[in-house]
Amino acid sequence: MRVYMGLVHFPVYNKNGERIASAITTLDIHDLARLAKTYDVRRLFVVTPLADQQELVRRVLRHWIEGYGGRYNRYRKEALECVSVVHSLEQAIDRIQEIEGEPPITIATDAAEQKERSISYEQARETILRDHVVVLIFGTAWGLHEEVITRADRVLVPVSGKGGYNHLSVRTAAAIILDRLAG
Amino acid sequence: MRVYMGLVHFPVYNKNGERIASAITTLDIHDLARLAKTYDVRRLFVVTPLADQQELVRRVLRHWIEGYGGRYNRYRKEALECVSVVHSLEQAIDRIQEIEGEPPITIATDAAEQKERSISYEQARETILRDHVVVLIFGTAWGLHEEVITRADRVLVPVSGKGGYNHLSVRTAAAIILDRLAG
Repeated sequence: MRVYMGLVHFPVYNKNGERIASAITTLDIHDLARLAKTYDVRRLFVVTPLADQQELVRRVLRHWIEGYGGRYNRYRKEALECVSVVHSLEQAIDRIQEIEGEPPITIATDAAEQKERSISYEQARETILRDHVVVLIFGTAWGLHEEVITRADRVLVPVSGKGGYNHLSVRTAAAIILDRLAG
Repeated sequence: MRVYMGLVHFPVYNKNGERIASAITTLDIHDLARLAKTYDVRRLFVVTPLADQQELVRRVLRHWIEGYGGRYNRYRKEALECVSVVHSLEQAIDRIQEIEGEPPITIATDAAEQKERSISYEQARETILRDHVVVLIFGTAWGLHEEVITRADRVLVPVSGKGGYNHLSVRTAAAIILDRLAG
């Protein structure tokens, strides 16, 4: 498996459908790093162009990797060691290409159905099992901006439960998606 | 489906294996309520014997149900309306019995394998699909105390990924478990 994750803070939507850069939720980084470690994801890229938000992520990482956190809880250290901060999704993709020697297939996740560009969990799982390099892209706030969706190679069908309610947190949606694709 | 969830803050373990009451993480309540709503779980019981922590949960619920939060985001309101605060797991079980007219089958979740008392995801899913009343019990902090595990009717096998790392947050573990049992 050569799977990567991107947690995107720009460009995403706010509640009013405007294009914004969202604030970092530090718990997202912990939860997604622990998921990455559980499902053998090679690296989690936290994407934000905001310098102060990048520095916040780096501070969290320093605490849990080099600082007291790493001594307090080695499992957390182990998980957070697979996190990188980048200023754009393009930078994440370049990094993956450097590591793997080939560009990743980009699979965006979205709470809305994308009709002809949608890929099922079975198809995405097969792509991963055929050892393609894949990056799963998750949006924060009110979801990935259309320009990310449009540029992605594929868009995963939404996680839908029983009653049509699809307003999960990015943490729990990412957990369900990883378990379906790599569990 | 007649499924309930319990999020237990006492008795749980701390890092040193001591029996404690953990503090409420308000994000857990949001994430689990949104999961409950997605997977048609009938009610989420937040279990804590500490009066100030019960009040904290009630304040969060008031804000998102009756207060500004409910007007700001009706999806959040809808999710949080399925949350109740109780002082013990026994009280949650009593409430479920009152609602359903029969006691629930209690299924504890644990990051450690419980040998002969373990139940597989397939078995648990079948139990749910046969319309049994079930309560899934999740522990906070370093997991459910042995006395909860011992009293439960069954213990679900741990969520295990590829490499033996099993240190997920309760939020993401609950997401994976619900998707496997009710997805």
